[in-house]
Amino acid sequence: MKAIRLHSYGQPPRLDDVPEPQATGPDDVVVRIGGAGLCRTDLHIIDGWFADAIPADLPLVLGHENAGWVHAVGPAVEHLAVGDPVICHPNLTCGACRACRAGDEMRCAAGPSLPGVNRAGGMAELFTTNARAIVKLGSTPPAALAALADAGLSAYHAVAKAVPALGPGSSAVAVGAGGLGHIGIQCLKAMTPAQVIAVDPSEEARKLALDCGADQVVTADGRQAQQVRDLTGAGADAVFDFVGEDSTIGDSVAMLRSGGTYYLVGYGGTVTFPSMQLVLGEVSIVANLIGTHPDLASLVDLAERGKVMLHSTRYPLDAAGDAIDDLRHGRIRGRAILTPG
Amino acid sequence: MKAIRLHSYGQPPRLDDVPEPQATGPDDVVVRIGGAGLCRTDLHIIDGWFADAIPADLPLVLGHENAGWVHAVGPAVEHLAVGDPVICHPNLTCGACRACRAGDEMRCAAGPSLPGVNRAGGMAELFTTNARAIVKLGSTPPAALAALADAGLSAYHAVAKAVPALGPGSSAVAVGAGGLGHIGIQCLKAMTPAQVIAVDPSEEARKLALDCGADQVVTADGRQAQQVRDLTGAGADAVFDFVGEDSTIGDSVAMLRSGGTYYLVGYGGTVTFPSMQLVLGEVSIVANLIGTHPDLASLVDLAERGKVMLHSTRYPLDAAGDAIDDLRHGRIRGRAILTPG
Amino acid sequence: MKAIRLHSYGQPPRLDDVPEPQATGPDDVVVRIGGAGLCRTDLHIIDGWFADAIPADLPLVLGHENAGWVHAVGPAVEHLAVGDPVICHPNLTCGACRACRAGDEMRCAAGPSLPGVNRAGGMAELFTTNARAIVKLGSTPPAALAALADAGLSAYHAVAKAVPALGPGSSAVAVGAGGLGHIGIQCLKAMTPAQVIAVDPSEEARKLALDCGADQVVTADGRQAQQVRDLTGAGADAVFDFVGEDSTIGDSVAMLRSGGTYYLVGYGGTVTFPSMQLVLGEVSIVANLIGTHPDLASLVDLAERGKVMLHSTRYPLDAAGDAIDDLRHGRIRGRAILTPG
Amino acid sequence: MKAIRLHSYGQPPRLDDVPEPQATGPDDVVVRIGGAGLCRTDLHIIDGWFADAIPADLPLVLGHENAGWVHAVGPAVEHLAVGDPVICHPNLTCGACRACRAGDEMRCAAGPSLPGVNRAGGMAELFTTNARAIVKLGSTPPAALAALADAGLSAYHAVAKAVPALGPGSSAVAVGAGGLGHIGIQCLKAMTPAQVIAVDPSEEARKLALDCGADQVVTADGRQAQQVRDLTGAGADAVFDFVGEDSTIGDSVAMLRSGGTYYLVGYGGTVTFPSMQLVLGEVSIVANLIGTHPDLASLVDLAERGKVMLHSTRYPLDAAGDAIDDLRHGRIRGRAILTPG
Repeated sequence: MKAIRLHSYGQPPRLDDVPEPQATGPDDVVVRIGGAGLCRTDLHIIDGWFADAIPADLPLVLGHENAGWVHAVGPAVEHLAVGDPVICHPNLTCGACRACRAGDEMRCAAGPSLPGVNRAGGMAELFTTNARAIVKLGSTPPAALAALADAGLSAYHAVAKAVPALGPGSSAVAVGAGGLGHIGIQCLKAMTPAQVIAVDPSEEARKLALDCGADQVVTADGRQAQQVRDLTGAGADAVFDFVGEDSTIGDSVAMLRSGGTYYLVGYGGTVTFPSMQLVLGEVSIVANLIGTHPDLASLVDLAERGKVMLHSTRYPLDAAGDAIDDLRHGRIRGRAILTPG
Repeated sequence: MKAIRLHSYGQPPRLDDVPEPQATGPDDVVVRIGGAGLCRTDLHIIDGWFADAIPADLPLVLGHENAGWVHAVGPAVEHLAVGDPVICHPNLTCGACRACRAGDEMRCAAGPSLPGVNRAGGMAELFTTNARAIVKLGSTPPAALAALADAGLSAYHAVAKAVPALGPGSSAVAVGAGGLGHIGIQCLKAMTPAQVIAVDPSEEARKLALDCGADQVVTADGRQAQQVRDLTGAGADAVFDFVGEDSTIGDSVAMLRSGGTYYLVGYGGTVTFPSMQLVLGEVSIVANLIGTHPDLASLVDLAERGKVMLHSTRYPLDAAGDAIDDLRHGRIRGRAILTPG
Repeated sequence: MKAIRLHSYGQPPRLDDVPEPQATGPDDVVVRIGGAGLCRTDLHIIDGWFADAIPADLPLVLGHENAGWVHAVGPAVEHLAVGDPVICHPNLTCGACRACRAGDEMRCAAGPSLPGVNRAGGMAELFTTNARAIVKLGSTPPAALAALADAGLSAYHAVAKAVPALGPGSSAVAVGAGGLGHIGIQCLKAMTPAQVIAVDPSEEARKLALDCGADQVVTADGRQAQQVRDLTGAGADAVFDFVGEDSTIGDSVAMLRSGGTYYLVGYGGTVTFPSMQLVLGEVSIVANLIGTHPDLASLVDLAERGKVMLHSTRYPLDAAGDAIDDLRHGRIRGRAILTPG
Repeated sequence: MKAIRLHSYGQPPRLDDVPEPQATGPDDVVVRIGGAGLCRTDLHIIDGWFADAIPADLPLVLGHENAGWVHAVGPAVEHLAVGDPVICHPNLTCGACRACRAGDEMRCAAGPSLPGVNRAGGMAELFTTNARAIVKLGSTPPAALAALADAGLSAYHAVAKAVPALGPGSSAVAVGAGGLGHIGIQCLKAMTPAQVIAVDPSEEARKLALDCGADQVVTADGRQAQQVRDLTGAGADAVFDFVGEDSTIGDSVAMLRSGGTYYLVGYGGTVTFPSMQLVLGEVSIVANLIGTHPDLASLVDLAERGKVMLHSTRYPLDAAGDAIDDLRHGRIRGRAILTPG
């Protein structure tokens, strides 16, 4: 079958012919790919950012946001049938450790087993995961939901943590209304009665934010923290930073009310604050790492009921090179999805 | 000034001329009434149901759901100005006891001090409350919001308890889509992503439920528990019983999934279940008593932002007798509001 | 091997010779029994109480509270080794359904699969469970902990729900200081700073309660509700009813402060209250069904660290008849544990 | 009366004769001081650290940790009587704003009104606060509890936030076992079943930590993060930094398990981490600012019941200069308390 493989860090991945995977392990599930999301994390993987933290053998089939249909199952898999439409959680977990028991699957004691990162991913016609990673889908075509598996999941996970603090009269800010942010805004609107403000330098992104239900938009032009304070009275209860660069980190904390919480979702910059500033403002800084299997099931429920919609651009699998190029140069609207066949 | 007073239990209240109240105590607030809600609790008060539990001196000015404008304040009141539009929490509390400190104001150690129940209420041109009971309003006319002060507050309070259990994929049932229920449905839609099902025998009430955002409606015709189970798969996560009669109590618990919670808001019937049934279904039964001051502020926020709308019928204060009559005979759509002047 | 089997409801179970179980399924775990708890639930099973709700094929090996050492594992079990000391959660679950994912394993979509109830239990030399049901033990001998698997778990589960409401200054009551209650008292002392009051008619049980750390004991002599109210000021924040008979149900709710919660753990009687009483007192009634796998792991942690100790009486497996007899006639101190070999 | 007043920043405060305060405002409470705590915050105030953030008129009576007996009350104060033993929350709040209603009193909309910081404090024979700031005491002499009002409250507040994450099997670290830390350790032991580890460079402090109930102590010698990881397996669930210097900030986060939370209580250093480190470890950083009135009441409850004991050294009021000197030079064991008369 065809697969997009990374042969060396810093080099463009190639379209290769590789053997079809088999469901040999008792809990294996082979999925026929409907769509595989492509995002900045793929660029980081290609560029070797994770090579030390999460080592991988090259060549590596890319693709960590995968959805499709069950193609084959191992002998111990009872609750899935060939043809079931599914989306795949990005980590393969043991199900037996304390973390898995608590729904805290990103911290499975077995360590990270991440398709497209340290094992073969879904930019291919078929790929193998395990039964625990599967979330069944309803009537929405898998390709339309693939990007929920990582980008959407990360945005959902952060918003879900904030729900208890976002009752009536509260306010939440989405910094960045792109691939992560436009999903975060929809989750905030679906799950809380908070006033939702989106901050972005791009007019197109701010328009997308309004389409996604944002109550107000603010232009990121250097005065955005003050504008958020003006719109909220005393600052926001929660600020979600979907960008995570030096400038957005400082701005985001400056948007908070005393006692508010800053959710770090995107990353890249440095978090640096005098401890006295954090104490006097009683600030909380909450970093977020992907999300749990129940998070993914919840997000799929929102999507299947029309409460979260993904804006995406599709590319055939063999045009992966073009897609990567377009992503590097900011030419993609919404999320890029690779579709085989 | 004019006031509607109860002179003896079981007799219709009368329109009397009484002296105007003064803001003599340091924390007193005299409110010029914009609207006073009339509801079944008033019928229970007239009929003497509370005479033993919460004794009152007669004659008593009725009116426990009050909104209007600040008319005068005592010397220690600093945060309110004459003319401020306000709605009044139904209990006057001390602010110093452990319960008040915890926002648990219905359990103030000073005991119940309830306008229209055991002290002069708001079916009058003016009435006295204290500064702690006040929630400031925005631009919505007070009369339009008066019924939030008790009926709305009770529905909100129960829904707010359920929010943590009502994430994506969950389901909630409103049993009764009348005065309490139509607010409860709107609160559920504003605050949770749950599937909301309304159950009512009346076609008109079911239509109101759909207007309020209910995802499905079910006719209360004896098969409603089974129909809810069919719609939800395994039963509902939360059932809010806004009626509380023997039949709705049994039906409501029969609608629950294993591990679900029954919220008792309306009352009158008897809660009776074999303990083994409750244990095997791991049922929780949560009774609800009005709500807190923060609850009322939150509900006002939802109403001011158009997320909760009240359906009401207005009567001039001197037509209180007609209003009471119409209420007793089921001739009122939504809530009845008495408006002086 | 030897096993205690029920051949017909209402008849004493018999000591039989049966074939040894094998770890044939991929996730099977065969446990060599160190101890199997015997409790009132076994009497109910023998008497046929569950025959309709949870049908079983007879003859049935009894024993739902099982601990011992891993004897054999199926081919997919990687995290357990022969000889590991273990205790077994009383339900075998699928691990894939929404309930299992949320740690809500008593509601596994696969339905109840309960050793000693509807499949072969642990009153035997060996018994089969699955990998998901296992909690590994540390240095405490398995027989000493067997009764944690159901009785202890039920008490822990109820207490764990109450932790958020039991801060400093709060009060909790254990109604019944026997097999369930003496564990519940220790959990309350280990996990909360609440004042703990134990209520029991038996002087010996009250003495056990004090040994377990209860701050006060009250004799159940008809005046216990008033005595609890006197000791707590306004009533208790939480009352745990480890008995669940008609009389304890009424008394327990009468011990609550306004806004307090009644936890129903034992069962048998009928819960019956006027809805108006529940609403005016804003009472919550929370039924409890066994507990989750993380609950059991947590309870084992408390026991291994000396914070929860079990009072038990051991019988050899072939004296099961005597143990059942002693239990029926109230002649057992603490929990009865059957030990093979 | 006598009072310790700061006349200019950077200069030692002086013992002055000043007029006695009167309970002139309706909610005023004049307290006869039993003891006033002295802590590093007083040194910061003397040194002018807060002069910009929270401006004050000089001369200023110092003393922000105050306990004693009610001496006089304003006309609107009903629940306090002359002679009542009391401790005083360090902020005077309005009781009417949204923050006060939510028990979030450090963020009262009226702004900070802090005895000993921007209004006359309690290093005097008498001082004035308001009725809302008072917590009544039981039988413990006020001087013994004075330091609960700020140092104790800060430690309690942080621990209380962590309680939901500190169930059985969890671990918590106190970095610094001095004035704040020794109270934090006792709160952790009283309120959670967590394993508690104390880290301090001083042998005397580590001994105090063990007396306070710490399960293990670790010497802060540069290898403390690794030692904590060794003791906990995968890192601690919660680390409380009672010091807040550059070195402890980095060390504390290095002690966390993935998904753990760092509680910043002491302050002075800079919090600085690459965002990618925080995201990959899913770290939360929670800053803490004093605490609420219910927090103080809860802490007093723990102290009155013997679960939290304060180690203190007393000085007569006119030896304040010596006390300040001893504090600056690290010669005080536990907390310094100034006692008039």
